[in-house]
Order: sequence, then C-alpha cells, then structure tokens
Amino acid sequence: MKSEEIEKVNLADKFNLIKDHWNPRIVGELNGQQVKIAKFLGPFEWHHHEHEDEFFLVVKGQFELHLRDKVLTLNPGEFTIVPRGVEHKPVANEEAEVLMFEPASTVNTGNLQHSERTRTNLEKL
Amino acid sequence: MKSEEIEKVNLADKFNLIKDHWNPRIVGELNGQQVKIAKFLGPFEWHHHEHEDEFFLVVKGQFELHLRDKVLTLNPGEFTIVPRGVEHKPVANEEAEVLMFEPASTVNTGNLQHSERTRTNLEKL
Repeated sequence: MKSEEIEKVNLADKFNLIKDHWNPRIVGELNGQQVKIAKFLGPFEWHHHEHEDEFFLVVKGQFELHLRDKVLTLNPGEFTIVPRGVEHKPVANEEAEVLMFEPASTVNTGNLQHSERTRTNLEKL
Repeated sequence: MKSEEIEKVNLADKFNLIKDHWNPRIVGELNGQQVKIAKFLGPFEWHHHEHEDEFFLVVKGQFELHLRDKVLTLNPGEFTIVPRGVEHKPVANEEAEVLMFEPASTVNTGNLQHSERTRTNLEKL
C-alpha cells in the first residue's frame, strides 16, 4: 500500500452509519486480524469461539459481558478479552457502541454457526 | 483460562500509571497480538516495520502521523492503520494517550533496532 492511501477513521462517523444491532462491520484489517464495530442492544446468545480470542472495547454506552460465573459491566474506555473456549453472552441494557479485534476467521456467534444472529460476509464501512 | 480470571481493563486507570513517553506497555494479549498503550509527547523517529501492520487509536489528546507524502492528525476516537513497510513518524504537539494493536513481535522503533527510543521487554500493566 502506498502511504497516500492511508486514511484515518473516525469511529463516531462509522457508528453513525449503523442502524441495526449485533451486526458487526469491518473498519480495518491488519496482520490477519480485523477491527470491527457493532451496536449492541438487548441480550445476545451464549456462545464461545473455538479458536479465537476476542477483544471488546466500549466506545459509548454500556454492556454486560455475562460469563458462566460472573458478569463484567463494561463502560466507555473499558475493554476485556474473552479467551477462546470461554462461554460468554453480551447483554446491552442500553445501546452500546463496541469496537472488537479478532481474527478475520471469527464468526460473531462462534460455535452457533446457524443462529439467526449469525453474520458472515460482513460489510466494510 | 477460566472465566473467573477474566477481568475488565479501564484505559484511563492504566494511562494514569504511565509517567513517561514513547514507552509502550502491554495491557492485553490475544491471538498472538498485543494491545499496548503509550503516552506520546514531542516528535518520534522516522521508522517502518518490515513485517507488521500497526493500529493507532487516540484515546485522549492528539498526535500527527507523518507519512512521507502527507500528515494525518488523529483526535480522540480516531484511528489509522500503518501497513508494513510504510515509513512513518508520530509527532505529538500535546500529550496524547494512544492504544495500539500489533503482533507481539513488533518493536516500537521498527527498523531502527538500536535507537535510544527502542523499547523491548515491555512492562505489562
């Protein structure tokens, strides 16, 4: 890539383009990993990722990351990493804007490959 | 890892522990990648990374990413990705708090392995 093709990305501008929930978009790619953003609202499904660790950073709003033995409440400027194999269920009681880092291979519903929430062929914003 | 070992990380709390500049700390690891944070102030050195793409997200403050043919000014909530091989020089005219995402192998000064700015064996916060 030539340096003139390098641009900056404003997260608020990208989140403004998103009108739905639990539908990750790709906003960057590097080293085989993707930077994704999504709006969360309501409860997601329990799932785990067999081969991928997942990073979640709250940009705006709040969500609860339910684990089998505790709940982490994530506010803006807070992140957590869910290691592969660990069951988790995000629950957003208000709308949350969330940035994720994960391998390009990661499917949002993990082991639930055919959930109605499953999203593949993600849009690039 | 057991789910009870999973914690959240508050970026502001971690940045408060940092009193120096251009000295990245590791705040998370996943999929062979590291999440790092650093405070930037003043000009860094021109360098490139032979094998690693680099992600920079401004959490607070502002910095300029100088490329050979343009300058990107990054404000809070803005990120950019510098592809491997592309020469760049961060310049912070005020103190900036920056989150980075890059392979565990990445050295901050890239091809300049013996700069006085080079940091290896990074501290984990």
